[in-house]
Amino acid sequence: MEPQRRPGGRSARVREAVLDATAAELAEHGYPGLTVEAVAQRAGVHKTTVYRRWRGPEGLVADALERAGEQPWPIPDTGTLTGDLRALTELLRTGFTDPESGSVATAFVAAGMQHPDAAAALRSYYTARHRDAAVIIDRAVARGELAPEVDATEIIRFATAPVFHRLFITHEPVTAEHARRAADAAVTVARTTQGPDGQTRTA
Amino acid sequence: MEPQRRPGGRSARVREAVLDATAAELAEHGYPGLTVEAVAQRAGVHKTTVYRRWRGPEGLVADALERAGEQPWPIPDTGTLTGDLRALTELLRTGFTDPESGSVATAFVAAGMQHPDAAAALRSYYTARHRDAAVIIDRAVARGELAPEVDATEIIRFATAPVFHRLFITHEPVTAEHARRAADAAVTVARTTQGPDGQTRTA
Repeated sequence: MEPQRRPGGRSARVREAVLDATAAELAEHGYPGLTVEAVAQRAGVHKTTVYRRWRGPEGLVADALERAGEQPWPIPDTGTLTGDLRALTELLRTGFTDPESGSVATAFVAAGMQHPDAAAALRSYYTARHRDAAVIIDRAVARGELAPEVDATEIIRFATAPVFHRLFITHEPVTAEHARRAADAAVTVARTTQGPDGQTRTA
Repeated sequence: MEPQRRPGGRSARVREAVLDATAAELAEHGYPGLTVEAVAQRAGVHKTTVYRRWRGPEGLVADALERAGEQPWPIPDTGTLTGDLRALTELLRTGFTDPESGSVATAFVAAGMQHPDAAAALRSYYTARHRDAAVIIDRAVARGELAPEVDATEIIRFATAPVFHRLFITHEPVTAEHARRAADAAVTVARTTQGPDGQTRTA
């Protein structure tokens, strides 16, 4: 998109300012209220700069998610599979319910339901996140807690899906207890791997 | 809201027409594009009728979800827990990916992320759905497949959450195989009930 971009240069600073403004605008007005004009004004750059580089709201959201994906994610390392997955689901829960970070994160998820480009960006984002978090499963396999056949990213999905489900589908409260139960359920599933014949067998 | 409403009377017919129009408008334009004017025109009623009874888009969505909740849901009854949960997750998957019904169902979920009233309506809707589907777990307990301590609606949530997660959070494809694996994972979890001391024990 911007091959002459140099890390730390003016272009990188403009990107930071514009994507910070995108997050702030999303949190305040949601995806339908996201405009290039408001982002440019908030970032202190000319709107033609934003149009040229990001084209529109879809491009802004996609790049904001790309940046979020570049930032290191604190993958828990507690020494046990249960401890790691409990910490992961609790991080997810508090991240979305935090008054500051939560509204931005929620706006990203909402954007995915409103525009195919945002949906594609979210898909890439979560693919990378699941790959990162799969190290939790790899470590459990290395410790002998799990059979090597376990589908690592699928276990990450099983652990996190019930938290997302309450937050964004059923709109039920999500307590620390709910996050813990989701993690524990995924541990139970991980310990029962799926054989190549489709029959379950215990590790 | 409308105490003088008689089933089958003119009021009921108006409601059917208006809520059908609401679903069609939602499927075409999404929640941000839902207007009382367009719904009234499509339903062939005067817009003041719609304003008086439903007030606005939030009221229309809430009542459309209430009507959806009133319609009987085909709870699978295959004779086994695995068969029932597999059928349930497959119904969910095909319902959301069906070209006709899918866009309306998807629009309801999207509306929940855009307005607190729609979120509250979805919460009531899913609470009722989970209660209905809990009969699957009750039957499994009666057959001796599960321990009576199992949390029935939580198992329904675990079975369905991974399907919703792919559809609306990560925007990954959802195949019949994914729906089946979600159901099987929930069966595995259901067979390991949670004791009052928080320690897992096998039924």
